[in-house]
Amino acid sequence: MDLNSDLAEGFGRWELGDDEALLAIVTSANVACGYHAGDATVIRRACEQAAHHGVAVGAQVGYRDLPGFGRRFIDVPPPELTNDVLYQIGALDGLARVSGTRVRYVKPHGALYNALVHHAEQAAAVVEAVRAWDPECAVLGLPGSQWLAQAERAGLPVHREAFADRAYTPEGTLVPRREPGAVLHDPQEIADRCVRIAAGEPITAIDGSALRVTADSLCVHGDSPGAVQIAEAVRDRLRSEGVALRSFAAEREM
Amino acid sequence: MDLNSDLAEGFGRWELGDDEALLAIVTSANVACGYHAGDATVIRRACEQAAHHGVAVGAQVGYRDLPGFGRRFIDVPPPELTNDVLYQIGALDGLARVSGTRVRYVKPHGALYNALVHHAEQAAAVVEAVRAWDPECAVLGLPGSQWLAQAERAGLPVHREAFADRAYTPEGTLVPRREPGAVLHDPQEIADRCVRIAAGEPITAIDGSALRVTADSLCVHGDSPGAVQIAEAVRDRLRSEGVALRSFAAEREM
Amino acid sequence: MDLNSDLAEGFGRWELGDDEALLAIVTSANVACGYHAGDATVIRRACEQAAHHGVAVGAQVGYRDLPGFGRRFIDVPPPELTNDVLYQIGALDGLARVSGTRVRYVKPHGALYNALVHHAEQAAAVVEAVRAWDPECAVLGLPGSQWLAQAERAGLPVHREAFADRAYTPEGTLVPRREPGAVLHDPQEIADRCVRIAAGEPITAIDGSALRVTADSLCVHGDSPGAVQIAEAVRDRLRSEGVALRSFAAEREM
Amino acid sequence: MDLNSDLAEGFGRWELGDDEALLAIVTSANVACGYHAGDATVIRRACEQAAHHGVAVGAQVGYRDLPGFGRRFIDVPPPELTNDVLYQIGALDGLARVSGTRVRYVKPHGALYNALVHHAEQAAAVVEAVRAWDPECAVLGLPGSQWLAQAERAGLPVHREAFADRAYTPEGTLVPRREPGAVLHDPQEIADRCVRIAAGEPITAIDGSALRVTADSLCVHGDSPGAVQIAEAVRDRLRSEGVALRSFAAEREM
Repeated sequence: MDLNSDLAEGFGRWELGDDEALLAIVTSANVACGYHAGDATVIRRACEQAAHHGVAVGAQVGYRDLPGFGRRFIDVPPPELTNDVLYQIGALDGLARVSGTRVRYVKPHGALYNALVHHAEQAAAVVEAVRAWDPECAVLGLPGSQWLAQAERAGLPVHREAFADRAYTPEGTLVPRREPGAVLHDPQEIADRCVRIAAGEPITAIDGSALRVTADSLCVHGDSPGAVQIAEAVRDRLRSEGVALRSFAAEREM
Repeated sequence: MDLNSDLAEGFGRWELGDDEALLAIVTSANVACGYHAGDATVIRRACEQAAHHGVAVGAQVGYRDLPGFGRRFIDVPPPELTNDVLYQIGALDGLARVSGTRVRYVKPHGALYNALVHHAEQAAAVVEAVRAWDPECAVLGLPGSQWLAQAERAGLPVHREAFADRAYTPEGTLVPRREPGAVLHDPQEIADRCVRIAAGEPITAIDGSALRVTADSLCVHGDSPGAVQIAEAVRDRLRSEGVALRSFAAEREM
Repeated sequence: MDLNSDLAEGFGRWELGDDEALLAIVTSANVACGYHAGDATVIRRACEQAAHHGVAVGAQVGYRDLPGFGRRFIDVPPPELTNDVLYQIGALDGLARVSGTRVRYVKPHGALYNALVHHAEQAAAVVEAVRAWDPECAVLGLPGSQWLAQAERAGLPVHREAFADRAYTPEGTLVPRREPGAVLHDPQEIADRCVRIAAGEPITAIDGSALRVTADSLCVHGDSPGAVQIAEAVRDRLRSEGVALRSFAAEREM
Repeated sequence: MDLNSDLAEGFGRWELGDDEALLAIVTSANVACGYHAGDATVIRRACEQAAHHGVAVGAQVGYRDLPGFGRRFIDVPPPELTNDVLYQIGALDGLARVSGTRVRYVKPHGALYNALVHHAEQAAAVVEAVRAWDPECAVLGLPGSQWLAQAERAGLPVHREAFADRAYTPEGTLVPRREPGAVLHDPQEIADRCVRIAAGEPITAIDGSALRVTADSLCVHGDSPGAVQIAEAVRDRLRSEGVALRSFAAEREM
């Protein structure tokens, strides 16, 4: 099982999350690329620490929207979106290279992540960027999304993630954040759920029904209060249950 | 001899210069990287056309200053400047790769170009970025600048440029733009001067004295009226004088 | 009748349109406010020339999207959109004041203009900004849009515009730009149509049927080739037909 | 005596400082205007709370440099700097108006603050912006700076500030942040010093000598750990010593 988290989401004077602590816990780092968050110095530091800890670096690509932190849908024409994603992957890879690692996978951020669940044209645009960049680059995303479906058709290695701290509907989608109970806060409850997902056992959906969630990676959030404690609890419980933690994006020659 | 020009300096809706025409003339393209100009789509188009014409792609790196077009000195702390330059080179290289080429050299833009003549710390920061990126990456710049001196000490392949359309002082520096006669406009006069530089013959400085300018590359500007005509005149005269035009940044394995 | 045009749409080094020529022709200037285009210096120059020619200054407010020139829908939460619009109006008004004029009306730009035809929440957000700024500030927009309907309900003075150079469907909406015949190019044909609209006579829709378009203002574009010639033709024909040209946003005490 | 603090320095997702707590303590709020920090929503909230508490709103104008938080000198041509400052004042004033207050004074931020100590041309440019905006608008700054000297010559109401938590050289300038002892952290020591300044008594410079600092306002910082506690300690001690706290920028008709 893999643990992934969003990192390098500060910008200049503004800090966000505790990159250093999280990079000692997770196995895959979704590094912001400067479009929604992250400047060159924040990115490089995250890459160096990821390389130090043997954590796989992924490009967390987003809409070009620093004021909105990439959380607002933007109707970018697909050919431009392809180029915007290539720009971000390349920029991150330049900083990863000098830090002793490379970009191993791509995961969309925020409103782009949500758009790619259903928006076939934008999903195709991002898939095309990854394929053009490196046809063996892995992608990470939501099971059932256009993003993963089209990436699979394009021959890219596809990996599915589950969210450690989010409630699920009986249909297996996330309960929207604005609804009560949407976000879990108790580290032990979250860790329990991760163990069940890792073991292939059903979890409890928000209505109490049993739900089977298949995942190659568990997403732990980095920017909420208690984020580091939750990530540690998840890691420790998985380890004590004998689950090996290792990035899906294993090192390979580039 | 090499002919270089600044390209991909549009941004979104805003166009600047005639990239397509210039890429059919020059041998080296200083491609903007998005910090002072250039968005991902403009950059990719320039890279594709450069690859099509066999023109070498260089990273025209600048200060992060779209409102000022990179023409205002910014007192960026050197370690951050190193990271900013790596970000730009990486972003451009990502788009160059999918266009069938790579970043072959680095040339600073605007106020950064001017700062690196004397500003030892910023020069060291940019040299460090290039060296970390690729210790065999070429650099292009002004003879006598800190930029070229430090690049040479760092073991980078160094190339000197002369300005086809700018008047020189008797000391070999450029006459500031605001002074009368600083910019040459007559295509034939400009072409004549280029032929003399290529032949190793002295040119006439602004005070009438003879001045020897040594250069591996001639810079022709792309964004002034008549720019394409001047570039064509320079190329045609050099060819008719038997000067072979070829980028200093010859293709190599990467 | 009023003639309006989009102005101050350059940014730093990048020029767009011929503000000086258009400000000698139109009666209302939709001045960009820095979110989609326009920097403080471009804006001030447009304000000074508008004041010189007695042209009314309007705030051409848009999404915060310089790379996309405000032409991409952004799903901005309405309360933030209200604040973004207030920021833009205030910034423009500061530069207008020192130029001897004030912001007299508001017109949305690009993708925001299109969104406000149907997007009730964003329309309400922009109306709320204008009302909070000045409940006597005029608004300009498309007849039948949410924007004008909600502005009217909020008690703001409402003005309808027609597009001089765009083909209309039989239902009175604009033919999308990507369809053949969507944009008119012949100055005399455009001027003829403006005269008919000013006289309250029907024009010919794209299918040949007669269409009555009611408008207080005619929009002439500033950034296309021949824009100035078209604007002049429209003005001259209207004048020769005895139509008085005067901004709907008459001067008033503020 | 007046207490001033920098506020509204968050941006989008990124928070900085505790605006709400500080606005219950200080008498003058240096509100960021969006060039170095602050978006429209953060700014509006600060204005509303300032209006609620009767705190005077000032425009904390800076270089256009979000990535550098306005802390890097930018060699902006003076006429453009004038326009940039007008844009910022106007934008803030638009949001202040709808919050029930107005811009009462101007204080430069960061690298611009430091530049205006000696840079006569940039100081003149900012003074010109304030004068053009409103010749009765107050300015706040460092005693002995070009900024205050030129503002005074231009007839603007001038107010001097001292820094509650910074060590002074025997010459009355601030000890640079990188030197030991440059920043004071003990709330009682800071409060003691403020009382001495308010009483016109000398304080102790870093070398132990006595130094008389004349000030109309005391600057307390908002973005360091313990900032709120320090500000409270200063306010409480001044009050208990009978010093009336009131903004130098008293309400006036506009």
